Amino acid sequence: MTTTSTALDEQAVRLDADDVLAPLRERFLLPDGVVYLDGNSLGPLPAAVPQALTDVVSRQWGTDLIRSWNSNGWWEAPLRVGDAVGRLLGAAPGQTVAGDSTSVQSFTALSAAAALRPDRTLLVTDPGHFPTDRYLAQAVADRQGLEVRHVPPAGLASFLAAEGDRVAVISYSPVDFRTGELYDMRSLTEAAHRVGALVLWDLCHAAGAMPLHLDALGVDFAVGCGYKFLNGGPGAPAYLYVARRHHEALDTPLPGWNGHADPFGLNRHYTPAPGIARARIGTPPILSLLALEAALTVFDDVDLARVRAKSLSLTAFFFRCTAELLDPLGFEPVTPSDPARRGSHVALRHPHAHALTRVLADRGVIIDMRAPDLLRFGVNALYTTHQHLLTAATHLSGIVREAAYDPTPPPSGPVT
Amino acid sequence: MTTTSTALDEQAVRLDADDVLAPLRERFLLPDGVVYLDGNSLGPLPAAVPQALTDVVSRQWGTDLIRSWNSNGWWEAPLRVGDAVGRLLGAAPGQTVAGDSTSVQSFTALSAAAALRPDRTLLVTDPGHFPTDRYLAQAVADRQGLEVRHVPPAGLASFLAAEGDRVAVISYSPVDFRTGELYDMRSLTEAAHRVGALVLWDLCHAAGAMPLHLDALGVDFAVGCGYKFLNGGPGAPAYLYVARRHHEALDTPLPGWNGHADPFGLNRHYTPAPGIARARIGTPPILSLLALEAALTVFDDVDLARVRAKSLSLTAFFFRCTAELLDPLGFEPVTPSDPARRGSHVALRHPHAHALTRVLADRGVIIDMRAPDLLRFGVNALYTTHQHLLTAATHLSGIVREAAYDPTPPPSGPVT
Repeated sequence: MTTTSTALDEQAVRLDADDVLAPLRERFLLPDGVVYLDGNSLGPLPAAVPQALTDVVSRQWGTDLIRSWNSNGWWEAPLRVGDAVGRLLGAAPGQTVAGDSTSVQSFTALSAAAALRPDRTLLVTDPGHFPTDRYLAQAVADRQGLEVRHVPPAGLASFLAAEGDRVAVISYSPVDFRTGELYDMRSLTEAAHRVGALVLWDLCHAAGAMPLHLDALGVDFAVGCGYKFLNGGPGAPAYLYVARRHHEALDTPLPGWNGHADPFGLNRHYTPAPGIARARIGTPPILSLLALEAALTVFDDVDLARVRAKSLSLTAFFFRCTAELLDPLGFEPVTPSDPARRGSHVALRHPHAHALTRVLADRGVIIDMRAPDLLRFGVNALYTTHQHLLTAATHLSGIVREAAYDPTPPPSGPVT
Repeated sequence: MTTTSTALDEQAVRLDADDVLAPLRERFLLPDGVVYLDGNSLGPLPAAVPQALTDVVSRQWGTDLIRSWNSNGWWEAPLRVGDAVGRLLGAAPGQTVAGDSTSVQSFTALSAAAALRPDRTLLVTDPGHFPTDRYLAQAVADRQGLEVRHVPPAGLASFLAAEGDRVAVISYSPVDFRTGELYDMRSLTEAAHRVGALVLWDLCHAAGAMPLHLDALGVDFAVGCGYKFLNGGPGAPAYLYVARRHHEALDTPLPGWNGHADPFGLNRHYTPAPGIARARIGTPPILSLLALEAALTVFDDVDLARVRAKSLSLTAFFFRCTAELLDPLGFEPVTPSDPARRGSHVALRHPHAHALTRVLADRGVIIDMRAPDLLRFGVNALYTTHQHLLTAATHLSGIVREAAYDPTPPPSGPVT
């Protein structure tokens, strides 16, 4: 640790002392001596998971064997875990299913949404949307005879006012995965609905980090992963929300046998199950799915409004740290400072983002970077402290002042 | 245990004493006092899995956190595990990817196969194929403008001789999931290739139970699940094999970011990765995937020809048991007695299959049933003994002779 500002240090101590969520940190098994600011890529291990998984493996699989599909509730798990996720989304039960990957769920949602608006020809998405959302939007459009239009969130309302009657579905994320900018789900949802378009939200960077209100906003579809703020483990199953009013007409592109009305009748023709169960596809990865279920217990009795308030306190404090320690060294904050416009990570631009991220990790501060030049600092109110952020900023400042990094060009590396 | 035939008992003892694969049973954690004949639905827990999974959860996820995508090989896992499965399929490395469900992989394979034969209009499949294969064949056909024809394996050669030039792809399983009948992969593959059609095999009921020769037979596509004879755990990730000659032209229907040539470049447009990696979709469920990888070590140094020979010895012995103990009580074997025509389970028809299966389970013999009237006895040469099969037949005989079951109509229940 290099020298830090005394004032910032005092602020961190005071803010952490006043933190009513601080005890929640005990719900995670975080390694000693590590400042983990990459929970927006992979949430850390919840303390409830190892024991739950041991039970799933040794007792349910090992001893109860095939009977567990009934006796241990494996068959219902996608719907049960879906409902547990739905509680974090503002979704009443029976509208969310867990399973597959965000990519597969996005494909299902986009395909089904387009099929609900057969007379419309445009699929509108964010040019800055996460790549897999963009690739799958193009794939669905190509297969179903639609055209993709890329419209940034800021221009969406005016685009819809002009061409909205041709739009089948809009596909956006409330949080930009690079910059951390937060968009207004309510106004964008309303703008789409005014012109009769459907709305798909990708909640990967929002669910678990802030209150969401899918039912109240009248959202049509939502998808997201289980492994960021939901802490479900690497590649944890994703989820799909479909508003109840669309269930009866929902035509899924992958009618797998788990979504059949009578799956064990093993019928010749596909008859979709009633409700969200028709969005099930194949047999889900039970070990990963039940690890996610155990992980979601970290949210038991947690008020997401408090989570959001602390997240904003953390990111506001980090802005103070960067203003004093990093901005003078050439770091440029790209996340909006307006609290209403920022999600739960802060991105700083620096030409040597890749090398700095690596040296920070060597010093026990884990963040990630997004090519070519963004450092991302994710905060999770369930375990991040203000002191963590000051530690990160102090180390980063020290690394730059000491020139303790090798500014080689960044290779591509697997971090999501 | 009720009375058993002394001759059968002596045979079982002798056959088990001569079993060179008997030590492999130590590679599984099987509950005491249970005869498990449902490994063709859910393989039992391999002894290597609990420790491997503890390492994945506590060290890799808990301690190494996001870095594990590189340092613990998570990113490469779908290809690495795919190759491990490929060794059981007769597939050289670089042609098999693990992940998603059999349903999703079937959708990918059928869609990509049809796209490789754009001038052809028929997709031919088995009317007795597992439901999800049939449902997805219809879905792909509807979306890509093909027509599905249902042709039993026995009639396929003559159908192809008549209409083969219109056939894009045939989709079959080498083992009928109900009857256990084994079809000749070589002759069906050759019949399809003679007319220029592509071949997709669903290997769910074959992989791990017998030698397979995908490369040698020139098979185009194959899919299968990880949780039957591969013992990967409930809902273990599936796999997709695509022959190398098709990689360059392979157009997958779900171009997720994991299949991009430069996934962390986060590019605007989708450029498929070279090789089988382009069949990756989204982020895979790592806990389930690495459990499958650990499970596959039960095949280390195991000769699949010996596995097949013992499987045939087990089912042949079971036929002797049923002939003496069950056929006189009204059970009708539906699995061919010709060893060249049976897979690794035996099905018996009985009008009270459902009730009998339940009472058998109460007596420690776990089998499954398929509506409306089939009892399935799956054998796995890695752990099943001849004595197990005699025990099962003896109990079943006793239950019928004592009328110790309630012949109520069978409800639908979740057993795959």
